[in-house]
Amino acid sequence: MLQQLFSPSVQHTLDLIGIFVFAISGALLAVRKNFDVFGIAVLAEVTALGGGLFRDLMIGAVPPAAFTDLGYFSTPLLAALLVFFLHPQVERIQLGVNIFDAAGLGLFCVTGTTKAYDYGLNLTASAALGLATAVGGGVLRDVLANETPSLLRWDRDLYAVPAIVGAAIVVLCIRYDALNPYTSGFAVVTAFALRLLAMKYHWRAPRAWNRRSTVSEE
Amino acid sequence: MLQQLFSPSVQHTLDLIGIFVFAISGALLAVRKNFDVFGIAVLAEVTALGGGLFRDLMIGAVPPAAFTDLGYFSTPLLAALLVFFLHPQVERIQLGVNIFDAAGLGLFCVTGTTKAYDYGLNLTASAALGLATAVGGGVLRDVLANETPSLLRWDRDLYAVPAIVGAAIVVLCIRYDALNPYTSGFAVVTAFALRLLAMKYHWRAPRAWNRRSTVSEE
Amino acid sequence: MLQQLFSPSVQHTLDLIGIFVFAISGALLAVRKNFDVFGIAVLAEVTALGGGLFRDLMIGAVPPAAFTDLGYFSTPLLAALLVFFLHPQVERIQLGVNIFDAAGLGLFCVTGTTKAYDYGLNLTASAALGLATAVGGGVLRDVLANETPSLLRWDRDLYAVPAIVGAAIVVLCIRYDALNPYTSGFAVVTAFALRLLAMKYHWRAPRAWNRRSTVSEE
Repeated sequence: MLQQLFSPSVQHTLDLIGIFVFAISGALLAVRKNFDVFGIAVLAEVTALGGGLFRDLMIGAVPPAAFTDLGYFSTPLLAALLVFFLHPQVERIQLGVNIFDAAGLGLFCVTGTTKAYDYGLNLTASAALGLATAVGGGVLRDVLANETPSLLRWDRDLYAVPAIVGAAIVVLCIRYDALNPYTSGFAVVTAFALRLLAMKYHWRAPRAWNRRSTVSEE
Repeated sequence: MLQQLFSPSVQHTLDLIGIFVFAISGALLAVRKNFDVFGIAVLAEVTALGGGLFRDLMIGAVPPAAFTDLGYFSTPLLAALLVFFLHPQVERIQLGVNIFDAAGLGLFCVTGTTKAYDYGLNLTASAALGLATAVGGGVLRDVLANETPSLLRWDRDLYAVPAIVGAAIVVLCIRYDALNPYTSGFAVVTAFALRLLAMKYHWRAPRAWNRRSTVSEE
Repeated sequence: MLQQLFSPSVQHTLDLIGIFVFAISGALLAVRKNFDVFGIAVLAEVTALGGGLFRDLMIGAVPPAAFTDLGYFSTPLLAALLVFFLHPQVERIQLGVNIFDAAGLGLFCVTGTTKAYDYGLNLTASAALGLATAVGGGVLRDVLANETPSLLRWDRDLYAVPAIVGAAIVVLCIRYDALNPYTSGFAVVTAFALRLLAMKYHWRAPRAWNRRSTVSEE
C-alpha cells in the first residue's frame, strides 16, 4: 500500500467535489436531452461514479466504493436536485462548472492510477485505469444519452491528454520511488492546468492523415 | 442471510416468469428494429438478464446466476423463438405483456434489494441495486438497439418510481426487522400496482423547472 | 484445468494476431466516424479487448488478462498508429483485414469457451461466453461509436453463427472428453471457414416471420 496521498479527510473532500462537478455535467446533459427528473438523477450518478465503478470492477474491488460510501452515492443526487430546480443559473456559470470539471479530471486520473497500483496492477495498466477513472463516467453519460462520446470526437478540446499526462507523472513517480503528497499534488495540478489551457486555446487532437473524404460525417 | 422470501421453487418460478416477460419486451424491440433472429435472441437475453448481471457484478457474485442456472439462460431463447414466429400475435397482446412486465418490475426490485443486502451492502446501496436489477435490463436493451433509454425519457409513463417504492419498502422492513414473505409480497404487489396505475393514468415525472427551450429536442 | 490447447507461445502469438486485427476494425470505424487520434486508440482498444474483458469479469478472472499482459494492451495501440498514418492503404486491403478478422473470430470463440470452462462454468454458459468473447468487442465498438451493432443487423453477413458453431464443437469435445489440440484446431478452422463462406456468399440470418411493415426501419 502506498502511503496516503493526502490525509483521509482531505482526500474524501476532494473526491466529493470531483463527484459533484462530474454529476453536474451529467445532469445538465440530461436537461438538454429533455429527460425527466429520474433521468437527470440517473445521468448524474452514472457520470459521477461510472469511471470509478469501472476501475473497481477491473481491479476486483467489489462492492465498489460508490456503493459502500453513502457520500459518494448521495452527492450526485444533490447535484441532480440543484440542476433540476436551478438549471438556467447553473448553465450561466458553465465556465465555473468547466473549471471544476477540469479539477475533477486532474484529481481522478491521479487517485485512479494510485488505487489501481495499490491493487497490484503493473504501471501501464495502472495509468490506463487512471485514465479510465477520469474519463469513463463521461463516456457512459454520452452512451446512455445516445450521443457520440464527447471524448472521441475530434471537434472537442483535448480531454484525454491532460489525464494521460497526470497518470504518466504518477507512474513515473512510483517507478522512481518518488510518490508523495507533493508529487501527487503536482500531477493533479499539471493535468488540471493542461485541461484549462486546452479549453482556453481550443487545443485539439489530429484526425487520421490522408482521410479521403472532406465532409464531416458526424 | 435473510430467510428465504418465498419457498425456493416458488421463487425460481417467479424469477423465470419475470425473465420471460422482460425477454419478450427485448425481442419485440428487436423485431421493430428489423434485427435478424440472432439480434432478437441477443436482445431478449440482454433485456432479461442484464439487470441481474449488473447487480451480481457489483456485489461480487461471480459467476452470475445468469450463467450458472440453465433455466435463466434458456428462458429468453424461448421468448425469442416465440416472438420470431408469432410476433404479430404477441404484439396484439401488448397489454398482457405490459402487465407481466410490471409484475417482473415489482418482483425484481424486491429480490434484487434482498440479494444485495445478503451480500453485505448497506441499505441505501441495496435499494439502489434493487432498482438497477429491475430497470438495468431495459436500459441495456435500449443502448444496444441504439435508442435513447425509455427509462430516461420524460414522455414515458413512470417506470423507475414503482421500483424505487418497492425497494424502499424492503429496506424499511429490513431496518425494522420486519422482512418476511408477507411484507416482501406486499412490496412486490405495491410496485406492481403502482406501475399498472402509472400506465393506466399516464403518470409522468416532471422535467427540469425553467427549461428555456419550448421545443422538444428529442 | 484442461491441457493447454497449443503451446503457450503459439497460443500467445495467435492471441496477439487476433487482437491486432480486431483493433484494426475498431480503428477503421473510428476514422470513418471522424474521431481524433485518441478516439482511434480508444476504439481500437475496446474492439480488441472488450470481448475478453467481459468474459473475465463474468468468470471472476480479475484483473483481466487485458490489464496484466502488456502485449495485449499495446498491440491495439500499434494498430491504431498504423491506421492513423496509413488508413487509405489499410482500407484498400479491407479483404485481407476481413480474413484476419474471421481468423480472430474463430480463435476467440474457442479460447473463450475453454477459459470459461476452466473457471468452472457449465457447458452452455461456457459456449455463451465463448461467443461473447468473439463478438463482444465488436458490439462495444459499435455502441461507443453510436451505431446500431453490426452483429444485430439483418443486412450483415452471418457473424454470430460461425462463432456459435466453433463454441459448440468445443463443448461437445469437452463433453465427450475429446478436447485436444487437434479438435480445438478443428473448431477454430471450422468457425473461420464458415465466416469466410458467409462473407463470400452473403449468407444472412432470417428476420422475424410475418413482419407487418415492408419498409426497412433502419
